[in-house]
Amino acid sequence: MTSINSCPNCAPAPPRLTSDPSRDASHMAHALRLARRGLGNVWPNPAVGCVLVRDGRVVGRGWTQPGGRPHAERMALDQAGDLARGATAYVTLEPCAHHGRTPPCAEGLAASGVARVVTALTDPDPRVAGKGHAMLRAAGIALTQGVLSDQAAELQAGFLSRITRGRPFLTLKLASSLDGRIAMASGESRWITGPDARAHVHALRAQHDAVMVGGMTARADLPQLNVRGIRTPQQPVRIVVSGQALPALAPQDENHGPLWRVEGPPDQLMADLAGRGITRVFCEGGGRLAASLLSAGLVDQVIGYSAGLMLGSDARPFVGPTGWDRLADAPRFRLVETRTIGPDLFHRWRAI
Amino acid sequence: MTSINSCPNCAPAPPRLTSDPSRDASHMAHALRLARRGLGNVWPNPAVGCVLVRDGRVVGRGWTQPGGRPHAERMALDQAGDLARGATAYVTLEPCAHHGRTPPCAEGLAASGVARVVTALTDPDPRVAGKGHAMLRAAGIALTQGVLSDQAAELQAGFLSRITRGRPFLTLKLASSLDGRIAMASGESRWITGPDARAHVHALRAQHDAVMVGGMTARADLPQLNVRGIRTPQQPVRIVVSGQALPALAPQDENHGPLWRVEGPPDQLMADLAGRGITRVFCEGGGRLAASLLSAGLVDQVIGYSAGLMLGSDARPFVGPTGWDRLADAPRFRLVETRTIGPDLFHRWRAI
Repeated sequence: MTSINSCPNCAPAPPRLTSDPSRDASHMAHALRLARRGLGNVWPNPAVGCVLVRDGRVVGRGWTQPGGRPHAERMALDQAGDLARGATAYVTLEPCAHHGRTPPCAEGLAASGVARVVTALTDPDPRVAGKGHAMLRAAGIALTQGVLSDQAAELQAGFLSRITRGRPFLTLKLASSLDGRIAMASGESRWITGPDARAHVHALRAQHDAVMVGGMTARADLPQLNVRGIRTPQQPVRIVVSGQALPALAPQDENHGPLWRVEGPPDQLMADLAGRGITRVFCEGGGRLAASLLSAGLVDQVIGYSAGLMLGSDARPFVGPTGWDRLADAPRFRLVETRTIGPDLFHRWRAI
Repeated sequence: MTSINSCPNCAPAPPRLTSDPSRDASHMAHALRLARRGLGNVWPNPAVGCVLVRDGRVVGRGWTQPGGRPHAERMALDQAGDLARGATAYVTLEPCAHHGRTPPCAEGLAASGVARVVTALTDPDPRVAGKGHAMLRAAGIALTQGVLSDQAAELQAGFLSRITRGRPFLTLKLASSLDGRIAMASGESRWITGPDARAHVHALRAQHDAVMVGGMTARADLPQLNVRGIRTPQQPVRIVVSGQALPALAPQDENHGPLWRVEGPPDQLMADLAGRGITRVFCEGGGRLAASLLSAGLVDQVIGYSAGLMLGSDARPFVGPTGWDRLADAPRFRLVETRTIGPDLFHRWRAI
């Protein structure tokens, strides 16, 4: 019999403070899985995960809670109680060092008697930026940094983008026919992709702070821009990029996030969203907005769902006119993932 | 030490005429791999493979030779010589029964003393259509039919289509950006996909009887429409669909197949190609030709290479105007294969 909290990756072992890279990576991967739960519902905070391990057993698990509080470390420490003493804490991001709405997590870890802390990334937020690590060291806590840093940076792409580039991480979704069409000339688009792909889109919306469309799409389709079919602790912000008044979309309620109309040059618009705390934006078209974001070099990721049908050039294109004359002008993307989702082909690309 | 012709799937065993399904399937798979060598260079004949096995050892291997003669069975029997006596012949298609340029293969198999024949498919050609099987039975040869028939039908899709539907099997190739564009407005298209995908296209051309483009593409690009970078026993026929005179394309020579200008309604055009013996057509565009073939329901397979870039709606679409009003009008395809080729996403779809 094993306890419900025993970690399958660890055999019971005496307390150890020395670094074991493969064990550290395994616990950090666990913390990253917990961190992922916060994506889309903790902005402007980072989605952090924390695992406390003592004597080879997990004694506490935490992740940034909806709205951003409590922090992952606080949740894990509260769960562990006295068992935190002498434990190792695996945290996906440098613990915070500043007094905000809550005391700094670095302080909380020290006060709890944690013996060692392992982190994946240094927090680039200037209020932290190494101060959390320094605070831990000053408290005599053993510190290992940079474990699974690439995976953590991928998970934290939105938070890191907002802090270091002053704009959210932007994903452009493309659900189209094999010839890149998203609707018939009449506007009919139900359904090009299948129900599995559509459910997948809702799961992705739930992991984003905001869902964004252009004004023409908003007026033509009156989209709900919300998460349906799965539970989410927080509906994404609905962003409509338009210089005109908004159409009659649903008011904000428990099933619909705040509705923001924004306008202006794409780079300014994205900077404004970052200023309002948005870290991850999921853009679902239409063609003009996609073209303007691509032209401005603001698209970090493309997620494609290709359905097995051909519509022809009288159907509506996914990307509007760009004005590019030469192939060299076109933004390029690197394939990072592909698989089938129901009958459709899923593919994910990152900006080069 | 094993002989160079020993089959890795067989342990030495006494002669056996009883059916062993897994051994039969293994030898038939071998014969299908041999048959594949003939694709694109044996039309109007089927690309057939033959393996002769005696006492668990392969004593002869044959496949339809370039131009269609000798047949696979003849080649394997000549290779085996006296060793054919008492052997089992695995043939991917019912042996021919009619006297053409060569004596019927069913007769050849009987004369050689083969004890058992295993086939994958009955030949729908009315000159054969069961007569080959009957001739073998009449000669006292044990016969097993239908082994790996699905795989054989897939391999023989072109030959079967020509005989049973009166038209070639038609593959439409789509090498495009993520938004389905094949060239900039200026016509610049070098290069959207990478060198690995382009090499893959040449390998596919080599497996087709003919490469087909529309007249606008032929005049705009002056394409070579040949197989480059790999050896092929026979260059594909170059078909240009156009009501106007042909542009100055390369004359037929050892590196360029015959050049045929064809015109007319798509279904008539494809029937005419079948009449001329073509079984497998590889269509590489352009947009108007693709739209007319799709509209006529003549596209059996779509092969896509998607490159990680976005070009926008001012770039050239892969499929021209179709005139379809409703999504239900659009032809649908089923994904059968996907993988990466270099940096590009390869995907293959079959008509539903």
